[in-house]
Amino acid sequence: MADAGWPGCSKSLKGVVLDMCGVLYDSGEGDGVALPGSVEAVKKLKASDLQLRFCTNETQATREKFVAKLQRLGFDICVSEVFSPAPAAVAVLKERGLKPHLLVYDGVLPEFDSVDKTNPNCVVIGDAAEKFSYQNLNEAFRVLINLEKPVLFSLGQGRYYKETDGLKLDVGVYMKALEYACDLKAEVIGKPSPMFFQSVLNDMGLQPSETLMIGDDLVNDVGGAQHCGMKGIQVRTGKYRASDEKHPTVTADGTVDNLAQAVDLILGQRGH
Amino acid sequence: MADAGWPGCSKSLKGVVLDMCGVLYDSGEGDGVALPGSVEAVKKLKASDLQLRFCTNETQATREKFVAKLQRLGFDICVSEVFSPAPAAVAVLKERGLKPHLLVYDGVLPEFDSVDKTNPNCVVIGDAAEKFSYQNLNEAFRVLINLEKPVLFSLGQGRYYKETDGLKLDVGVYMKALEYACDLKAEVIGKPSPMFFQSVLNDMGLQPSETLMIGDDLVNDVGGAQHCGMKGIQVRTGKYRASDEKHPTVTADGTVDNLAQAVDLILGQRGH
Repeated sequence: MADAGWPGCSKSLKGVVLDMCGVLYDSGEGDGVALPGSVEAVKKLKASDLQLRFCTNETQATREKFVAKLQRLGFDICVSEVFSPAPAAVAVLKERGLKPHLLVYDGVLPEFDSVDKTNPNCVVIGDAAEKFSYQNLNEAFRVLINLEKPVLFSLGQGRYYKETDGLKLDVGVYMKALEYACDLKAEVIGKPSPMFFQSVLNDMGLQPSETLMIGDDLVNDVGGAQHCGMKGIQVRTGKYRASDEKHPTVTADGTVDNLAQAVDLILGQRGH
Repeated sequence: MADAGWPGCSKSLKGVVLDMCGVLYDSGEGDGVALPGSVEAVKKLKASDLQLRFCTNETQATREKFVAKLQRLGFDICVSEVFSPAPAAVAVLKERGLKPHLLVYDGVLPEFDSVDKTNPNCVVIGDAAEKFSYQNLNEAFRVLINLEKPVLFSLGQGRYYKETDGLKLDVGVYMKALEYACDLKAEVIGKPSPMFFQSVLNDMGLQPSETLMIGDDLVNDVGGAQHCGMKGIQVRTGKYRASDEKHPTVTADGTVDNLAQAVDLILGQRGH
C-alpha cells in the first residue's frame, strides 16, 4: 500500500528520475533479471508527458555497456538518459585541471580515456571490488600522502550491496579507510551528492520541486533527492529493508511495493 | 635538546615502559637495525633500580619470534617483559567467552592457538598487511553483519607505518572500513587503550604517577600513557615528525633526540 499523502503532488510533476539497480532490475549472474512490471512501467512513463532520466551509482561498467545490458533485459533506454558517477567525475577533473590516479573496476576505465593521468595530483576510487587489494589501496594511499593538498574523489559512498553470492563491500568502505589513513574528507561524486542530482535537473531544465526521484536506497536515493528539494519515493524492492520505514533521519514522501505501482499511482493522478 | 621541565620527575619514578619499533630499532629487511645507543640504554635501565617493561603494538609475529629478533639485535630482553596486543586480546576473548574470526598476519596466529574459533561470534583484526584482500575483508564483514550483536576487536588503531620500501597502511585503516560497513565502533586492544597500559602497570605493581612511557608515536604512546596518568616522553626517532611538537591535542612531557639521551637524563637526575 502506498502512503495516502504523496500521489497528490504528481499533478504538478514535470519529470521523474529513476534509480536503476533494485528498481528496474536485480543484479546477479549474467545480466540479472528485470523486476516484475518494471519494463512496462518505463514504457508508460516514456509515453506520458513527463521527462524521464535514470540515475545510478553503478561504477563497474561504462554507460554504454550498462545500457546495453538494460536493453537486453527489455528496457527502452539510451545512454544520454543515464547519469552515472564516472562521467560526472571526468567533468569535475577537467574543470579543476586534476589528473587522477584511478582505483576503479577495469570495466569502467574507458570512461576516463579522455583524462590525463600522468603525474597524478588526486585519487579517484570507484567500486573496485577485487581490485581493492592491500597493494592497490596502499598505492592510492601513497599517492595521496605525498600530495601537498591531497584530494580524494569517491564514486558513491555505499556501505555494501547484495549480489547473488551474498553481500559485498562497496566503495564507501574504502573511502572511509583512505579518509582515516590520510586524515582528509573525500568528495563524493554520485548519489547522494547534491551536485549530482543538480546535473540531472539541469539536463531536464526542471526545478527540484517539479521532479520526483524513485529509488530503493532510502539514504542515497530518497534522502539525497529530498536534500535538493525533490520528492523522494522508496520502492520495496532491491535493498529496501522494513526498518527503512522507521529510519531516524530520512522519511520517504511515499513508499510503494515496486516501480509499477509507483508509475500507476503517478499517472493515475495525472488522469492518464 | 630535551625539554627543561621533565627530567625533574625522574626522581620519583619507579618504572619505565618502552615502545619498541622506532625507539629500540628501525624495522626493515631482515631484523632491521638497532638505533644508536639503544642497546646500551636498555642495559643501563636494567642495571638501575627502575622496573622496566616493553610495550608494542606489533601484531605480525608471536612475542617469542619478536623477542628473538630483538635479542639478535643485541637487546637484553625476555618474553615476559613484553606486552603486545595479541595476548591481551586472547585474555579478553576468554574472559567474555567470545570465539573470534581472525583476520591477522599468519605469523601471529600461534598466539591464538588456545582460543576456540568455531562458529565465530566476533572478529579480531590485526596488521594483516597483504592479507587485507577484498575477499578477506569481505569475509570478516559478512561474519560481523550476520551477528545479532557484532563485536569487532582491532589490535591497534595505527594509520600507517614506515618500512624500508615506503609507507604501509596499518590496521586502523581497516578498522575504520569495517566500522563504516557495519555501523559499529571497534574495541581497540593495544596502545592507546587505557586497559592495555593498565595491564602493564598491574604487572609492575606500580601507580601511573610512578611510571614513564617513552615512545616515538605521539598519539598512541605519549598521549595514551598520559591519558592513564603516566608521564609520556617522545623520542625524535622512528615515526617522529617535527610537526608532533606543535600537535593540537597531545603535548609530550618531554622530547629527546633518542632513547640513549632519555635514559641518561633520567638516571642523571636519580644520581646514577
